[in-house]
Amino acid sequence: MDRRQFIRKAGLVSTGAAASVGTLAMPAIAQSMPEIKWRLASSFPKSTDAIFGSSELFAKTVSEATDGKFQIQVFPAGELVPPLQVLDAVQNDTVEITHTASYYFIGKDLTFAIATSLPFGLNTRQQQAWILQGGGLELFNDFLANYNAVMLLGGNTGTQMGGWFRNEINSVADLKGLKFRVGGVGGKVLSALGVVPQQIPAPDIYPALEKGTIDATEWVGPYDDERLGLYQVAKYYYYPSFWEGSSALQYMINKKKWDELPQAYKAVLKAAAALANDDMTAAYDARNFAALKRLVAQGVQLRPFSREILDAAYDAAFKLYEDEAAKNPAFKKIYEPWKQFRAESYQWFRVAEYNFDSYVYSQQAAGK
Amino acid sequence: MDRRQFIRKAGLVSTGAAASVGTLAMPAIAQSMPEIKWRLASSFPKSTDAIFGSSELFAKTVSEATDGKFQIQVFPAGELVPPLQVLDAVQNDTVEITHTASYYFIGKDLTFAIATSLPFGLNTRQQQAWILQGGGLELFNDFLANYNAVMLLGGNTGTQMGGWFRNEINSVADLKGLKFRVGGVGGKVLSALGVVPQQIPAPDIYPALEKGTIDATEWVGPYDDERLGLYQVAKYYYYPSFWEGSSALQYMINKKKWDELPQAYKAVLKAAAALANDDMTAAYDARNFAALKRLVAQGVQLRPFSREILDAAYDAAFKLYEDEAAKNPAFKKIYEPWKQFRAESYQWFRVAEYNFDSYVYSQQAAGK
Repeated sequence: MDRRQFIRKAGLVSTGAAASVGTLAMPAIAQSMPEIKWRLASSFPKSTDAIFGSSELFAKTVSEATDGKFQIQVFPAGELVPPLQVLDAVQNDTVEITHTASYYFIGKDLTFAIATSLPFGLNTRQQQAWILQGGGLELFNDFLANYNAVMLLGGNTGTQMGGWFRNEINSVADLKGLKFRVGGVGGKVLSALGVVPQQIPAPDIYPALEKGTIDATEWVGPYDDERLGLYQVAKYYYYPSFWEGSSALQYMINKKKWDELPQAYKAVLKAAAALANDDMTAAYDARNFAALKRLVAQGVQLRPFSREILDAAYDAAFKLYEDEAAKNPAFKKIYEPWKQFRAESYQWFRVAEYNFDSYVYSQQAAGK
Repeated sequence: MDRRQFIRKAGLVSTGAAASVGTLAMPAIAQSMPEIKWRLASSFPKSTDAIFGSSELFAKTVSEATDGKFQIQVFPAGELVPPLQVLDAVQNDTVEITHTASYYFIGKDLTFAIATSLPFGLNTRQQQAWILQGGGLELFNDFLANYNAVMLLGGNTGTQMGGWFRNEINSVADLKGLKFRVGGVGGKVLSALGVVPQQIPAPDIYPALEKGTIDATEWVGPYDDERLGLYQVAKYYYYPSFWEGSSALQYMINKKKWDELPQAYKAVLKAAAALANDDMTAAYDARNFAALKRLVAQGVQLRPFSREILDAAYDAAFKLYEDEAAKNPAFKKIYEPWKQFRAESYQWFRVAEYNFDSYVYSQQAAGK
């Protein structure tokens, strides 16, 4: 197709009007594969390499797929923007894109948590199904329009661990006054049970735990936790993180910049994000075991949270959600369909998935 | 970068040598984004729309991402090639690509089964982690080189259902002589328990079950099974399909055609396949519940396979794998690392993932 025919097919008269419209309004027509450079501000340091590596894979794929015409430079947390201010940076077009966890922004609106994780929420498969095929993506992009942003899935850590405790925690009474480094909605739920949530940046966790400034901390799971060396100062490693049954990350993109992209680049970004999404989850799923084995060899004691603690936290979590839905229409608009999806997907997963897992795991436990 | 500089950077002298090398050997240099048309022969009919729709999404994404330059035309099962001959068609370059299930080709070599599912094998997350980050993809592409093919992940159905039975099946004794439409390695395992596996194409299943020519049949899960109407002629719906704890599909591509692609198009294919991979799994995960609910409303009786049946099948399955590994080096080369990955990923998933799922599902079962 020659250029004149292309312009005609695009519904424009071939009188030079296309050129006068300007590149920003009509980039796909002015040049279908223009040279573009974006900056990605990550909320994560290079040391969380399953996460950071997936964002590098995303950028590499975008570059390769466009023959180097669309370049995304990836910056670790703090280099361009502090890790929890990346959404502001995207909103203000300081950077075009971030790789982040939506729940970092619950200070703006608790609704943000739902895209990453609500305590006792969806597991990884369910969260992804809800976003991709259950209406979640459309709901979130409507919500994110208020922040001049659109999102794509950006990987999932899977179910996280409940964290490192200096002492055993058996009952709700043991949680009273516990200084626990835990953020987000998990922190809100646990505070209802008497925990005193602490906010401490990653590099300061080890010394705080060593000195007893805090009693416990959570981070991610074996693969990332091992690097912080926490097992040397807190030997009880609890599971699961009931506040992160899965933890989904996102690519959030400045909406104006997204809307201006040629169709081809939108397709490339969506596909490259899916590739990185799969890569990150697979990285955690493939690497956690070896780290867990090394931790146990170091004397780490694995402990499940007691039913008493889980039950109390469960009740506190759903009370929190219902209270929020009663006063926050944005939360209610997403929470209610999410809750419905949760109920339905649990019912399905309880049939085939859970029974398959239960049987094969029981065989392994029996040494077969 | 002008063309001369591009050629110089690619390590070629700028004396016209590039042109004389020919387009097949050096397509990325001759033209980085050439016009290409491929034909995809699917093993699946349009009626399995979660699967077929994902292959259409794959082709649409490839086209969009390349501004229409790389077109893949998708043909349902049988239109170009019979559904189980798609690998031959790729190998012979009758078509460039197929969307299929590797285990359809166990008649050539049992090794093919491992990329889709072995009975009592990996669940969806574990299978994907093994392929993407556990060495599975490299092992399979080495194996597929013998068939002039390379693979990309092409979606997963999740744990399937065990199928439709006219009568209850409680013990291994009940399986003796049972005419069960079940193929692949599942059929081999069940035949060791006395089942007489039947091969019947999808359109003939319903009448065969209605007339009693067969006693039972398996297909996929609620979403696909509902359309075949099997609940009208066999009311016992068993779970889980222990022979398909997950069932991974693949895009298989003629290796010469793959090797000839410009780097950009390889990146686009990999990323578009990941997008379609996520879409297909999410489609099943999001749609199975509603179908299951309708089936139960029609009087379908859900039944778990008994422990006795599962245990007998488990022993038969691993005996089959060990026997095959002893006589088939290609199988052994992939089975042994797969088995190791299985053992390790089970140990990790049993900690956080399984305990999270167990708790939240138990809360739902208790009406909370």
